[in-house]
Amino acid sequence: MSSPHFLDIFFYPTSVAVVGASREPMSVNYRLVDNLVKLGFKGNIFPVNPNADEIVGLKAYASLRDIGAEVDLVVSAVPARMTLDVMKECVDKRVGGVVVVSGGFSDAGELGGKEQSEMARLLKENGIRAVGPNALSPINSENNLVISFLPARKIIAGGVSLVFQSGFYDPRLNWIFCDFHLGVNKLLDLGNKMDINEVDALEYLAGDDSTKAIAIHIETVKGDGKRFVQILKDTTRVKPVVVLKSGRSVAGAKAAASHTGSVARESDIVFDALLKQCGAIRAHTVEEFFDFAKAVGFLAPPRGNGIVIASLSGGEGVIAIDAAQQHGFSLAKPGSNAYAKMKAVFPPWEIPLNSFDLGVCAQFHGWRGLYDVLFESMIGDAGVDCMVVGLPPLGMMFDPETACKPFLLGKDARIPVAVWRLAPDKSLDAFIEALESNNVPVYPSAERAIKALSVVYRYHNWRRAAG
Amino acid sequence: MSSPHFLDIFFYPTSVAVVGASREPMSVNYRLVDNLVKLGFKGNIFPVNPNADEIVGLKAYASLRDIGAEVDLVVSAVPARMTLDVMKECVDKRVGGVVVVSGGFSDAGELGGKEQSEMARLLKENGIRAVGPNALSPINSENNLVISFLPARKIIAGGVSLVFQSGFYDPRLNWIFCDFHLGVNKLLDLGNKMDINEVDALEYLAGDDSTKAIAIHIETVKGDGKRFVQILKDTTRVKPVVVLKSGRSVAGAKAAASHTGSVARESDIVFDALLKQCGAIRAHTVEEFFDFAKAVGFLAPPRGNGIVIASLSGGEGVIAIDAAQQHGFSLAKPGSNAYAKMKAVFPPWEIPLNSFDLGVCAQFHGWRGLYDVLFESMIGDAGVDCMVVGLPPLGMMFDPETACKPFLLGKDARIPVAVWRLAPDKSLDAFIEALESNNVPVYPSAERAIKALSVVYRYHNWRRAAG
Repeated sequence: MSSPHFLDIFFYPTSVAVVGASREPMSVNYRLVDNLVKLGFKGNIFPVNPNADEIVGLKAYASLRDIGAEVDLVVSAVPARMTLDVMKECVDKRVGGVVVVSGGFSDAGELGGKEQSEMARLLKENGIRAVGPNALSPINSENNLVISFLPARKIIAGGVSLVFQSGFYDPRLNWIFCDFHLGVNKLLDLGNKMDINEVDALEYLAGDDSTKAIAIHIETVKGDGKRFVQILKDTTRVKPVVVLKSGRSVAGAKAAASHTGSVARESDIVFDALLKQCGAIRAHTVEEFFDFAKAVGFLAPPRGNGIVIASLSGGEGVIAIDAAQQHGFSLAKPGSNAYAKMKAVFPPWEIPLNSFDLGVCAQFHGWRGLYDVLFESMIGDAGVDCMVVGLPPLGMMFDPETACKPFLLGKDARIPVAVWRLAPDKSLDAFIEALESNNVPVYPSAERAIKALSVVYRYHNWRRAAG
Repeated sequence: MSSPHFLDIFFYPTSVAVVGASREPMSVNYRLVDNLVKLGFKGNIFPVNPNADEIVGLKAYASLRDIGAEVDLVVSAVPARMTLDVMKECVDKRVGGVVVVSGGFSDAGELGGKEQSEMARLLKENGIRAVGPNALSPINSENNLVISFLPARKIIAGGVSLVFQSGFYDPRLNWIFCDFHLGVNKLLDLGNKMDINEVDALEYLAGDDSTKAIAIHIETVKGDGKRFVQILKDTTRVKPVVVLKSGRSVAGAKAAASHTGSVARESDIVFDALLKQCGAIRAHTVEEFFDFAKAVGFLAPPRGNGIVIASLSGGEGVIAIDAAQQHGFSLAKPGSNAYAKMKAVFPPWEIPLNSFDLGVCAQFHGWRGLYDVLFESMIGDAGVDCMVVGLPPLGMMFDPETACKPFLLGKDARIPVAVWRLAPDKSLDAFIEALESNNVPVYPSAERAIKALSVVYRYHNWRRAAG
């Protein structure tokens, strides 16, 4: 960490108290504690529930006041109308920071809004910073701090930090880590943003050395707009920032206002122009948000726009070429040496040409060793800046480690390689996991692989130009 | 069928001979026969291989001439340089039609092109129609006729017929049927189109009563362009046609020319305008191609653009509203009766509002019966034209049949319902399969569900206007 920041206590608490912890294994408030225990949070866990002696094998406390030790972070998950009392206890206990998980405040009409203001005022007067309400936060893979309503299966550490304005990521948590294989460094859900907002989050993650890339979902800018732009500008000069802005439409903005009590102030066109000017990467859909986050988290910058495409069929190659051209790539022209090496796996009547049709090669030469020849001939060729490669849905012929090897040549040479698979295929799961744990991203289509790769290219191009 | 057509023999042969059938279970030429046997093709199967007595338990023949019975369809999968001899045998045997699976013709340089012309001339002189070369065809779910290089697991019958200009669908075959649950009526891969082309295919499927919707992938129009436009126009007045055009870019068109030996004649802008004018639905990516095919295959036309959105979180609701507005929907305004019914599942402090946040309801009311209340209150309301609904990744609480029931209310009332799931979740697989076998499509994101639904709406709107 560079210098102390008020968000430190949210990501690196030595103790967490969960107020409203439940004994009922099917309830979401049970899981708040259970996840910390099962995933091995490196710190003390204090469940608070006046009607329980023990929760998930831990001693339960009747109130925060009954905890003998200091409490760094309080996660409050009691009903909205009881939350203010918990906040008063937080003040008495002089806790380090508070996350209010419960909704029912500015997201739920006038009364809720009033209560939220009262709560915010109380905490501010007493110098306690707060996330939420209506926020499931935080996650930190460095110390296995995971606040989630889902039974979280595992956490994969990585360089991407995520910020959300809504818990919409939570039902996807196991997917993010276990299926999508996105290595996450930190995750913050901001909810109604009564105190800590997107500006704070961005500022913190910009200065966080273990965060290599940031992906942020926002509906509204609640902090100082000018400061947001300035911090965004400063951040993109050192690390990529992917932004998913929802509440773009008139009806969407109205809904955003009602569910978190925030108001969108800028029109979408203005916002779009701002993002471009700041060098931020805009995602237009949830799929793009995750696709782009993976790309900027995994891939080295291509040094130019010369792309090699290796598809499983000629038809798929044409589709990939269209996408490459649409997204600013040109077909790389590898040297004669590289072509000569490829010739060995092509049938005699075919002339190897970028894009390469691996389907034709496989019929002639078989799959074994095909990817070795492809990567050995292309990586290191001066004309090749990046590659996209299709995977056959044929199950694995080798163990995942061996199968991965040729794909990693690109990584060693800092030539980014993105992969696409033709269809979900359980027999490829272990191989895909091995690729992604080595930062080779696998996408569900050639078009998505190429679009994601183009985002990395354009970002680094912008950064080079911005100096 | 309306009236006899020369493509009938390709989809309804009483006998199929596979020339070049292999005894080697790992080879693609073994699977050509194995799929017909395993999937139970309703007709005679004659493997032809001079070096085998038996293939997949069937008597093998040294040549077509040795088959005592009549042969309706020949599937030729011998190497390119041996194919002309097989065609001569086809002529001698007076077979009904020929599919040339092998590549290495106009897709592979001058010599191959010459051989293709010679082959085409021979067949034409003798009145034998041909698909390919370089084509894996056909599939017909009515009689389990499946020509594929993959071990095909099963065939689901349905109303969508597919046309491809390249075998790029083949590695996806099991995905299409078993994971994507697209009910397919007929499938034709056209390959190099030395004889039968996209105009023939479209004309045939337009007149085919069991084909309710058509999805066609083309790189080039090889038939009469004016006739293609006229048939497309005529077809869209009776059934929806989704078109994926690849070879859109200059480099892509060049690659398309080299891999099938066809030349793209129109610019992409002209082509786009043509499709619009004809009322065809353009897919811009492979994912859209399949998403749209499923939508037009499964969904009844919405009578208007009033949409109800039910999401799992407020944040996801905002994202869905943005997408709905972008794709031409407006938020439906259900009547007070419908709202009153919904009120029962919302916490007292929340006012139910379209989009509906089911996450809030679930916390208050639980998941059980939630979808019943949603559909019972919305379907039948005069303000509701269509719905998109999110699925929780929580595993199934009920058996799939019971869980499906409320979703089918829409189908009965001809109010189209599209569903999205938040993340792939194996515990939901049986439920999703049950939904899709009942023509309720499930998409991987709200945005994709809404975009696909909008395509159905716009198509039927166009058709009403076109009269």
